[in-house]
Amino acid sequence: MELAAFQDVIARTYADRDRERGIAAAVAWLAEEVGELAQAVRKGSLDQQRHEVADVLAWLTSIAIQLGVDLDDAAGRYADGCPRCGSIPCRCG
Amino acid sequence: MELAAFQDVIARTYADRDRERGIAAAVAWLAEEVGELAQAVRKGSLDQQRHEVADVLAWLTSIAIQLGVDLDDAAGRYADGCPRCGSIPCRCG
Repeated sequence: MELAAFQDVIARTYADRDRERGIAAAVAWLAEEVGELAQAVRKGSLDQQRHEVADVLAWLTSIAIQLGVDLDDAAGRYADGCPRCGSIPCRCG
Repeated sequence: MELAAFQDVIARTYADRDRERGIAAAVAWLAEEVGELAQAVRKGSLDQQRHEVADVLAWLTSIAIQLGVDLDDAAGRYADGCPRCGSIPCRCG
């Protein structure tokens, strides 16, 4: 799936509700989902871990939408490897 | 950019370093980056917000790689809209 297509489906699914709640609520939800992912990493099944990875990705995307950030543009920061040292693999000290 | 291509470039860039650090370190880095995104949402420029969205996405992807979670599979949870109510737009109460 393209990042742009994922952003589009999240926008069509949640944009109205997100607009009502505002971005501070989305940041709080993202934090909550990161907590759930942390727990799934520690003691969850692979299915639970996949579920929580998806939820973090979805909330991150909701925030990007509200900010007017294009997820595909953002991902471009890493498209050629490490943004700090510019190499693949990363050679940062 | 495809989610699979993003996961691939992150793996080639950081897999060796991530293996050395372990997944608990990646969870801590993700939490740190979410904090930076929260700050950028509150008072950052659009460029800073885009940068932090990218960093959260990259750390989430590093965790997925270490878990053996395919980001594209995970995104499938939202491909047909809200996973709870199954509709676009979401109609959850």
